[in-house]
Amino acid sequence: MTLKIGVIGTGAIGREHIHRITHTLKGARVVAVNDFNPEQAHAVVDDLGLDAQVYASGVEVIQAPNVDALIVTSSGQTHEEFVLAAIDAGKPVFCEKPLAVTAEGCRRIVDAEMQAGRKLVQVGFMRRFDHSYRQLKQALDTDTIGAPLILNCVHRNPQSPSADFSGDMALTDSCVHEFDVLRWLLEDDYVSAQVIQPRKTRLCNESLQDPHVILLSTRAGIHISIESFVNCQYGYDIQCQVVGERGTASLPEPASVSVRHAAKLSSDILVSWKDRFMDAFDIEFQEWVDATTQGQMNGPSAWDGYVVAVTSDACVKAKHSGQIEPIELPGRPAFYDR
Amino acid sequence: MTLKIGVIGTGAIGREHIHRITHTLKGARVVAVNDFNPEQAHAVVDDLGLDAQVYASGVEVIQAPNVDALIVTSSGQTHEEFVLAAIDAGKPVFCEKPLAVTAEGCRRIVDAEMQAGRKLVQVGFMRRFDHSYRQLKQALDTDTIGAPLILNCVHRNPQSPSADFSGDMALTDSCVHEFDVLRWLLEDDYVSAQVIQPRKTRLCNESLQDPHVILLSTRAGIHISIESFVNCQYGYDIQCQVVGERGTASLPEPASVSVRHAAKLSSDILVSWKDRFMDAFDIEFQEWVDATTQGQMNGPSAWDGYVVAVTSDACVKAKHSGQIEPIELPGRPAFYDR
Amino acid sequence: MTLKIGVIGTGAIGREHIHRITHTLKGARVVAVNDFNPEQAHAVVDDLGLDAQVYASGVEVIQAPNVDALIVTSSGQTHEEFVLAAIDAGKPVFCEKPLAVTAEGCRRIVDAEMQAGRKLVQVGFMRRFDHSYRQLKQALDTDTIGAPLILNCVHRNPQSPSADFSGDMALTDSCVHEFDVLRWLLEDDYVSAQVIQPRKTRLCNESLQDPHVILLSTRAGIHISIESFVNCQYGYDIQCQVVGERGTASLPEPASVSVRHAAKLSSDILVSWKDRFMDAFDIEFQEWVDATTQGQMNGPSAWDGYVVAVTSDACVKAKHSGQIEPIELPGRPAFYDR
Amino acid sequence: MTLKIGVIGTGAIGREHIHRITHTLKGARVVAVNDFNPEQAHAVVDDLGLDAQVYASGVEVIQAPNVDALIVTSSGQTHEEFVLAAIDAGKPVFCEKPLAVTAEGCRRIVDAEMQAGRKLVQVGFMRRFDHSYRQLKQALDTDTIGAPLILNCVHRNPQSPSADFSGDMALTDSCVHEFDVLRWLLEDDYVSAQVIQPRKTRLCNESLQDPHVILLSTRAGIHISIESFVNCQYGYDIQCQVVGERGTASLPEPASVSVRHAAKLSSDILVSWKDRFMDAFDIEFQEWVDATTQGQMNGPSAWDGYVVAVTSDACVKAKHSGQIEPIELPGRPAFYDR
Repeated sequence: MTLKIGVIGTGAIGREHIHRITHTLKGARVVAVNDFNPEQAHAVVDDLGLDAQVYASGVEVIQAPNVDALIVTSSGQTHEEFVLAAIDAGKPVFCEKPLAVTAEGCRRIVDAEMQAGRKLVQVGFMRRFDHSYRQLKQALDTDTIGAPLILNCVHRNPQSPSADFSGDMALTDSCVHEFDVLRWLLEDDYVSAQVIQPRKTRLCNESLQDPHVILLSTRAGIHISIESFVNCQYGYDIQCQVVGERGTASLPEPASVSVRHAAKLSSDILVSWKDRFMDAFDIEFQEWVDATTQGQMNGPSAWDGYVVAVTSDACVKAKHSGQIEPIELPGRPAFYDR
Repeated sequence: MTLKIGVIGTGAIGREHIHRITHTLKGARVVAVNDFNPEQAHAVVDDLGLDAQVYASGVEVIQAPNVDALIVTSSGQTHEEFVLAAIDAGKPVFCEKPLAVTAEGCRRIVDAEMQAGRKLVQVGFMRRFDHSYRQLKQALDTDTIGAPLILNCVHRNPQSPSADFSGDMALTDSCVHEFDVLRWLLEDDYVSAQVIQPRKTRLCNESLQDPHVILLSTRAGIHISIESFVNCQYGYDIQCQVVGERGTASLPEPASVSVRHAAKLSSDILVSWKDRFMDAFDIEFQEWVDATTQGQMNGPSAWDGYVVAVTSDACVKAKHSGQIEPIELPGRPAFYDR
Repeated sequence: MTLKIGVIGTGAIGREHIHRITHTLKGARVVAVNDFNPEQAHAVVDDLGLDAQVYASGVEVIQAPNVDALIVTSSGQTHEEFVLAAIDAGKPVFCEKPLAVTAEGCRRIVDAEMQAGRKLVQVGFMRRFDHSYRQLKQALDTDTIGAPLILNCVHRNPQSPSADFSGDMALTDSCVHEFDVLRWLLEDDYVSAQVIQPRKTRLCNESLQDPHVILLSTRAGIHISIESFVNCQYGYDIQCQVVGERGTASLPEPASVSVRHAAKLSSDILVSWKDRFMDAFDIEFQEWVDATTQGQMNGPSAWDGYVVAVTSDACVKAKHSGQIEPIELPGRPAFYDR
Repeated sequence: MTLKIGVIGTGAIGREHIHRITHTLKGARVVAVNDFNPEQAHAVVDDLGLDAQVYASGVEVIQAPNVDALIVTSSGQTHEEFVLAAIDAGKPVFCEKPLAVTAEGCRRIVDAEMQAGRKLVQVGFMRRFDHSYRQLKQALDTDTIGAPLILNCVHRNPQSPSADFSGDMALTDSCVHEFDVLRWLLEDDYVSAQVIQPRKTRLCNESLQDPHVILLSTRAGIHISIESFVNCQYGYDIQCQVVGERGTASLPEPASVSVRHAAKLSSDILVSWKDRFMDAFDIEFQEWVDATTQGQMNGPSAWDGYVVAVTSDACVKAKHSGQIEPIELPGRPAFYDR
């Protein structure tokens, strides 16, 4: 059985996912697309040789009778509308982050999904599908290092991920991946946030605060530190170390040829997030296709998207107040129990 | 377009490749199978839910009109016959190692293929498709470390790869992967072989010489050392270091979580060759399917299989003579130029 | 010329320094000793075969005419008195940390030394003499990684360093080494402190908060994080990473044999601070002997001891207030310029 | 008690050892010196401020009544004469390698020493005193990796160690350190040698064969490979890996700051043998001084020097014959049992 997919939003990331489904993954086919810019949608269909119809609106894609499931990769502001429409149509939907641009929007999606009585929404947090994070979770599960007490995380990009990167986007756009994956890793929730603004690098847009250090505390009292440094110059570098009662466990460095040359022993550091998480994207979508085909939903849920939005809001508030701000979440509805 | 594949031999490795084609790869489908043991062939079809016909003989699979290409994973002794039949039928064939059990048999395949006037045969040397070997080749190609002078390679298994592992199988069955991948890495050919039998481990069958050290010399004068140690106990470990005029480059360790615990800083070492080369198998077959679909053949050729057989024979001779034995090869036919 | 040294306090650490001077270092000799427990002083003289006189009081050691310089390794409460007496006698004095048990006491020593018009006091912060910290400082000085923005430090002991380790000693007794060495590394001063109390390990005395995370901010805005975890179980582990505008630099792991065994690639982690800093102690004392012989004083000064005391006080206050507390220091007197 | 030392040969290495004895070590003093070039001997005495007499000949130094022990650092050709004279005078003598320029010369020293009835001679093989080799030996002694089967060693210099480096000096002058330390590590003796001449680097004097690969076999059947590459360009690099029945153990990399910069994770490689073995020299001489003072002799003996000479001769023969050459040694005299 082949899952027939409609894609809303055929920009860079949408195009990449369409390519992935068509040329890498098993069990799915893109049959319908839409983009704010219809020419771009047509171009993608032509370039990738799809047997897919171009629709005039996202909602028409959702309602197309031959569409089994949706992928939403349009601009962030439109996500809420399309996800709600997909829920309304009773169709599974994979939505790239953010689930909605406000916590309230995420909450509306959560409520609609619970109303619908069936988990339909997966949010595009791909780190849970990364081999090294899964290795790390497994290491924690074997209990070698004991109960986690402290997490030290680093999220470094060589330069600002996009030209319009500004203001608090490090908190709302970049570290959201940590906000999601660390909850999953620890099976715990955040209770407070603090944001430190260290000395700024001079090697970026003068108006940008970079780096940030985000401190989170969890229900269990685990202390989390996330360094976000989006203009670190030297490479794309994701680190995560868990300090437990009896030892520590850390994400491995990506494997890279070891060279001895000119009085240095060295190995390459990646420079692009795509190289770092390419395999995770493939696994994320293959697992989504497989689960969806079987009527299941196992990835990051609408609830997870909502929690990340609340966390992100608290971080923005903490950055501007300079205070430790609470992260207040209602209890997780039983609907979202695993 | 979907490549329709016939598989001859549905034992462990055949079954695995059928699973791979059916559940992981794009663009191919298994439509015909045969096994020496017909019940096993039927069982595979049932277990994997294939829409495939079981034939009474390998030759019937080859001749089946809906079969576009063949995979030969039957026992080694039968390879030559099936590969020759596939050439005769003008159909592309992927043959697991060995191409044939004698160098003469390989040579007959080479001659038949040249006669046929078209490259049809690919041999199952998967290391050329391994990401880390490709990284290493790329490192050599950038010329950072200068012209290669020496190669130090290690091939260690925790225990003998099979229950019947004996005699010279380290040379004829295990190190053949090195014999292939090192020629590809260096774009050079071997001219002599020497085999050293160090002090034997007591942790294996008493009749087995283990480890061996194989020394090869190339046309360019590069000195290659391959340690084969198939009962090293501690893990599955593949190492390759190139010493060049200005530096060295080495295969990376497979990425693994780094742990601090009980006064040790440690990371896991793999124990199975499957875990080490799983991704390489996927890439090997996907590239074979893609190339075959386009009427091309880019992987290890019949000529490569022949060279490995000649090398392997020289190593066996060298082991028993204790001498440096020449590796005599006719010049590579222009037919096999890339 | 041989520097004739008087040692006040012949407990474990005093005995070790006497042994060091007698059996490892050049250019110095212990000629006078005192201990609160006279029997112990006599035992040390006998055990180490010293040609040294045992005095009834520390002050008598200081005043002994053949004593050129002092080492104070008595209990912390007595340091201030003996250091002031040494200054009064115009004799160079090496004082183990703490310089005094209060910041005010340190300040009195600073004032007395300035009054004396000559630098006489060195405080026992040995990390400045550690080869790896010196390598790290050199790396910063070459400016490869650009201006420092963030420091991530770890100070882990396998178990509480002493039986009476309690309360805030992690801040007042253990992290003082970081407080000293980081200022030296950065050539900067602290302006505020915050102390986080993460989830407690269950593997220590129940009354102890362990670990702590100490956050310091410097005049330049550098953000420093120091994890203090004195019951980490797995080893003695000192880490320091500097994040600069263009890269990062980290203390190396101590060199240790690399072993492949039982599916692990591992190396030993030290378990004792003595093994980690043994060489640093030798260098610290040899440099002190050499400088003192030449009438100089190059190590951590009374001013450095005072700054550490003020920092330590601010951390204790911050721990109990849960707030970010200022670290208020008068400007460094020109007397202490280098 | 202070050991009063006479030094014969005050060139670069002699001067360095005199400096070491005078400024770093405990328990010894240089009281007499001689050099082929008397002006140089006087210059060293003046420069280092020694209270030492300059003698007109090495033999006079040996016979000087206030000289307790000798260090011979004159040119290699003179070693045999001075060592024999020291034995004749009944005085302990530390002789830099080579003990003598021929195996026969070494043998004459062995015979003379046995005749004298007392171990007096130590040869300057400093690697036995290197911390990392000692760690490696300890790792073998714990038996974690089981009985050794194979050793893989690397000895790389950035450029030829001296201007007159030529011919077979890699075998007679450079790898002698491996010849000594590996016997000590394994507590075994060599029985045969083979020397391979790989493709030559173009980055050195055209007349020089570089690199070499030396293969040794031991009584226990252990296979040893030593790569000697004296113009490797990139650094000074000493590696040693032992492959045992259950695992491997390797010398650690020298500790060096770890840097992330410009898409590389790197650490420095040493470029000078002095930096690599500086500490080993200090320990070697301190232990010699201490042992000599107590009438003992624990370091590499005249017998060890003789074995290295025989090994070195066999390697030269093997290089030129292209054959596996036996290393024939008489049984070790009980006199040299430890």
